[in-house]
Amino acid sequence: MGCCVKKIDIVRRILGERWGSVPQSLDGKAFAPTNIALCKYWGKRNQELNLPVTSSLSISLGKKGASVALKPIADTQDAVVLNGNAMNQESAFYKRLVHFLDLFRHANTTRLAVDIQSNIPVAAGLASSACGFASLVLALNELFAWRLTTADLSILARLGSGSASRSIWQGFVEWQAGERRDGMDSHGVLLDEIWPDLCIGLLIVSDNEKSISSREAMQRTVATSALYSAWPQKVADDLITLKQAIAHHDFELLGQAAESNAMTMHATMLSAWPAVSYAIPETVLAMQNVWRLRQQGLPLYFTQDAGPNIKLLFEKKNTDFVKSHFPHVEIIELLFTEPRASASVTGLDVS
Amino acid sequence: MGCCVKKIDIVRRILGERWGSVPQSLDGKAFAPTNIALCKYWGKRNQELNLPVTSSLSISLGKKGASVALKPIADTQDAVVLNGNAMNQESAFYKRLVHFLDLFRHANTTRLAVDIQSNIPVAAGLASSACGFASLVLALNELFAWRLTTADLSILARLGSGSASRSIWQGFVEWQAGERRDGMDSHGVLLDEIWPDLCIGLLIVSDNEKSISSREAMQRTVATSALYSAWPQKVADDLITLKQAIAHHDFELLGQAAESNAMTMHATMLSAWPAVSYAIPETVLAMQNVWRLRQQGLPLYFTQDAGPNIKLLFEKKNTDFVKSHFPHVEIIELLFTEPRASASVTGLDVS
Repeated sequence: MGCCVKKIDIVRRILGERWGSVPQSLDGKAFAPTNIALCKYWGKRNQELNLPVTSSLSISLGKKGASVALKPIADTQDAVVLNGNAMNQESAFYKRLVHFLDLFRHANTTRLAVDIQSNIPVAAGLASSACGFASLVLALNELFAWRLTTADLSILARLGSGSASRSIWQGFVEWQAGERRDGMDSHGVLLDEIWPDLCIGLLIVSDNEKSISSREAMQRTVATSALYSAWPQKVADDLITLKQAIAHHDFELLGQAAESNAMTMHATMLSAWPAVSYAIPETVLAMQNVWRLRQQGLPLYFTQDAGPNIKLLFEKKNTDFVKSHFPHVEIIELLFTEPRASASVTGLDVS
Repeated sequence: MGCCVKKIDIVRRILGERWGSVPQSLDGKAFAPTNIALCKYWGKRNQELNLPVTSSLSISLGKKGASVALKPIADTQDAVVLNGNAMNQESAFYKRLVHFLDLFRHANTTRLAVDIQSNIPVAAGLASSACGFASLVLALNELFAWRLTTADLSILARLGSGSASRSIWQGFVEWQAGERRDGMDSHGVLLDEIWPDLCIGLLIVSDNEKSISSREAMQRTVATSALYSAWPQKVADDLITLKQAIAHHDFELLGQAAESNAMTMHATMLSAWPAVSYAIPETVLAMQNVWRLRQQGLPLYFTQDAGPNIKLLFEKKNTDFVKSHFPHVEIIELLFTEPRASASVTGLDVS
């Protein structure tokens, strides 16, 4: 196994005899939160399997995410509905989703009606594909009654979109890069920590589709940025810092590591050729506001993903202050499952 | 010699017996152009002597720069006038300049009236200190009739401001980093090339003083950026490319290397902590305009120094097109001294 391992090989290995079986229920429903990385996933060591160069660490965004309802249908094609709109079979969205479903079935069997409800803008750097593929895998797990472990669910979600491997849980999740060439050790792991005073605020400065996909931006950065060689060590350092910050609820340590990690990821993109820049003028102004407020003593930090939007990091006690300075901020209610106290930590059902 | 070498040690070594002498003329006048680096100077290996980590390469901006007129005066203090305004003796500008003059004289001797005329905004990322210190050194050379070589003039200018070492000439100048700890091999060298079809356009989006000096930004980047370790190799590669581009008048090669080098320098700053960002919204819009026009087929590139302004790079034949898309652009008339054909390549007199 190694360079030539295909997605479907991994799926068949994980599902074993369950692969290609018929649905065990009338439907499968699941919700998965989107997540934002405090330590970013940027660069793949294997394009086919979405294996990352480095580990990464995220926080899931509570009720912000995607719900998927799957129903077997008697048809020759899958039917995909996104937020109430039937998706054209020629659209990239439809094709990517159906390609993914094909990993789990014999050709021309088990067509599905896929109803996706997402409460975040698609392709605006809010990890819409992360919660999309995670909820899809969770719903498939229900429909086919696979009863997979969360690690295996995470691996399957990763095959759809790398960061989806972290959207299987609420709370803090580390996606461990792993070392195996087949990626069987590359999946999310829930951190045994809760932090109810931590707050995330979304500053949506644009919900336009981004000019370049994170997939393409990542590839271009790895291939052309002279600075990318220094990125893995930066991640290794930031991961240690972030875990320490989470363990001690040291907010300033968390904020600094997360913001510095995000800025450094964007720095690697700016040094790519052609440069990848997700900043629009509003992004720059929002960052400058954060820096100004921090200079004035407010413990406020941000992170930014592959898009122009900014995610503010602050403590609950400063919520009103943050709202007064960012009237359009959307405060996210984070959800922490008490670790180890619950048998199921795979998210919220939509039912 | 080595770690403890002071500026004044270098000055005394270069001037020898001429150090501390009295003026040989009634006045000394000189002009020096500002320069923009196509391959940036970013990071010092010696703060005292302004010795760089890497070599760099610039183009001088013709008549854009500073003129200095020096006159000995019978007073206990120097008198400094910038663009007609007498500078307060408590100002940072006055103090820095007088500290520099003190390198060349015994205490309490030879007070000077220093009249500086600069036609570029001060501290807006247009290398005002480069042309300032270069013109000052050239004027001192006149006033005291030192008759120094251009290499020695470049070293003296470097002691005032690193990039001033490149402002001793018009045309393309490489500041060779050198290896000596005393920096006697760290000075500008004129490239034996002219390129009359090359054009530079200044896009001044802000002439406010910058929020952080390039000196401080550079130090912070070297001290805190996880990506800085990859910068020296980037410079080494870009220098080779730029010299090749200049030798063959390969404009696209030049533009790509210069823009990529600038983006990468700013990337190292963004990954510093706290991040250093010189971009204002207008900077982002200008860059995006350049990228859009280039996608449409126009060979247009830019570079950016430690400030929000953008310098466009294009060929003379495209001047009208560039003007139509950037109505506020100021086209710079570059001046190339025919290399080796002239005894004096030290700039233009103001007389």
